[in-house]
Amino acid sequence: MRLAIALGRRGLGQVWPNPAVGCVLVRDGRILARGWTGPGGRPHAEAAALARCDDARGATAYVSLEPCAHHGRTPPCSDALVRAGVARVVTALTDPDPRVSGRGHARLRAAGIEVVEGVEAELAHAANAGFLLRLTAGRPFLTLKLALTLDGRIATASGESRWITGPESRRAVHALRARHDAVLVGAGTARADDPDLTVRDLGVTHQPVRVVASRNLELDPESRLGRSAGEVPVWLLHAPGLTPSEGWAATGARLIDCPTGQDALDPRAMMATLAREGLTRVLCEGGGALAASLIGAGLVDELVIFAAGKMIGAEGRAGLGPLGLTSLSDAPGFELTHVQQIGPDLCQTWRRR
Amino acid sequence: MRLAIALGRRGLGQVWPNPAVGCVLVRDGRILARGWTGPGGRPHAEAAALARCDDARGATAYVSLEPCAHHGRTPPCSDALVRAGVARVVTALTDPDPRVSGRGHARLRAAGIEVVEGVEAELAHAANAGFLLRLTAGRPFLTLKLALTLDGRIATASGESRWITGPESRRAVHALRARHDAVLVGAGTARADDPDLTVRDLGVTHQPVRVVASRNLELDPESRLGRSAGEVPVWLLHAPGLTPSEGWAATGARLIDCPTGQDALDPRAMMATLAREGLTRVLCEGGGALAASLIGAGLVDELVIFAAGKMIGAEGRAGLGPLGLTSLSDAPGFELTHVQQIGPDLCQTWRRR
Repeated sequence: MRLAIALGRRGLGQVWPNPAVGCVLVRDGRILARGWTGPGGRPHAEAAALARCDDARGATAYVSLEPCAHHGRTPPCSDALVRAGVARVVTALTDPDPRVSGRGHARLRAAGIEVVEGVEAELAHAANAGFLLRLTAGRPFLTLKLALTLDGRIATASGESRWITGPESRRAVHALRARHDAVLVGAGTARADDPDLTVRDLGVTHQPVRVVASRNLELDPESRLGRSAGEVPVWLLHAPGLTPSEGWAATGARLIDCPTGQDALDPRAMMATLAREGLTRVLCEGGGALAASLIGAGLVDELVIFAAGKMIGAEGRAGLGPLGLTSLSDAPGFELTHVQQIGPDLCQTWRRR
Repeated sequence: MRLAIALGRRGLGQVWPNPAVGCVLVRDGRILARGWTGPGGRPHAEAAALARCDDARGATAYVSLEPCAHHGRTPPCSDALVRAGVARVVTALTDPDPRVSGRGHARLRAAGIEVVEGVEAELAHAANAGFLLRLTAGRPFLTLKLALTLDGRIATASGESRWITGPESRRAVHALRARHDAVLVGAGTARADDPDLTVRDLGVTHQPVRVVASRNLELDPESRLGRSAGEVPVWLLHAPGLTPSEGWAATGARLIDCPTGQDALDPRAMMATLAREGLTRVLCEGGGALAASLIGAGLVDELVIFAAGKMIGAEGRAGLGPLGLTSLSDAPGFELTHVQQIGPDLCQTWRRR
């Protein structure tokens, strides 16, 4: 099962709105075939594994999520497993999708197949947190990446920010992007840095959607994002009722209405909108105001901090904007899950407590 | 020699202005005795080892620093080694003290003892960086400790700071204090937190000197520091020509003149003053303004950051004050030497690049 879950992880960032599932077919203690959800969500992991196996009769299928039971773009995987003659199916999770939700397991049992559920459920849950959150909470899994000096700054007072962290960390950020469905930045950051937000130099062919939270659509269609929107998707989240300039209409970017809060787009509405559009895993890369609004709303599931061995001092730009706390006990809390030196920097992963 | 250096480290924080030396006597591959510099600097490591050994004739003495050659409060260790009849002396470093500086090695050689110098010199240099810096640069080794949130804050906007880090980290801070000759804070921190700055709950009997950088002596003699100055030394560094209040005169605290810079005490002058007073290892515990002045002057040799998994936001108080940088390339740089999870916090040690 751990192998099936690890295989499933290979699909993260490229299977949305589908889950990233893995499947291992085993008979007599030997692995017959392995499969995982393909790019775009097809084929499903079970179909991929069965396609690589001439004869799965009597085998055990380890699947990191309940096999589907509904006819979508592909026939149901539970039926495929039945047809292949597997003797036993071991799963980690029940699929909360109302079209499945126990029906996959039931179909298998009805066909006389032994079904074992809930194996390595916690691990599988973590691997598919985005898919599960989207279905159960109507929001994607949100990772916030911050590249900070030791005193929590992202730029000097004059705005100089290239580069705080080293090339090894910047490469790790590209790998992080590749494991997410979309990269999200605030309009201020998009204007200040004119970023690409693509995955480069990793031999990766798919690209995350690039989302800009731009309440007033104050972003130049001639920016790098605007000019490349024809090749890699760009979505602009903006306040309802705005008419985009002709420039933006020509870029191929999608413009999406989103309810606003006091000064900016409402963070919860923003996440709900992205989930409705199918996103399961979103990586926010700043700036400080957007990061603070997401942290403040309790929406950040994972925090990845690249800390560089530098100090900028209090005039520098803060990596996190104001949170409006009245008491220290209200401070959002995180627990350390991983720490690793990357080049000269220290990469820390913290998850919401 | 590595053992001798490790034994020497036991004296850190309690032997100033002396070096923290270790000595191991070995004969026929067996350790005859071990010794290290005693509290207050006496006995010296060689004397301590010889005192624990009935017969050191023909032995090799591994000593982390050149044995002394001058009559101070104790007779010279080089003579003691000669008298004890050791056959060979292996040392890591030459003592830069002008009263020794090669004379110890020469005395041993003159007595027919084989002398090997420079073994594990780098390790011994690191262990005695404070002693060496004081003699060669006229300043102590300076460690800056910061207890920060993930966004680099030390308190909420209203000043609430207890507790950012967990009890395990606070205990580690006490151990850090015990390995330093003195703890240094700015007057603002002393006023805001009314700290003890002592070593508690570690079974440690000696205490570091408590130093407050208080340009204008604006500190209440009825503070915890003032009230306890009779038991554990308190030194107040202040601008020249100030007359202390009668309250302070009665506490037993030492008041020490120190040249001032533009707004505060001059950081270089402060370190020079502390070195003149004999300190070899100083731990600065903030606040942000003092930390920035020391970082900005390039005086911080080691940075120990206790990062708590919390976020306070940009209104919170910054752990580091303004540095006045004009360019990112001027940002003071540090390299990671150690990282360790302590309770829920992440303790990182960085040394000046």
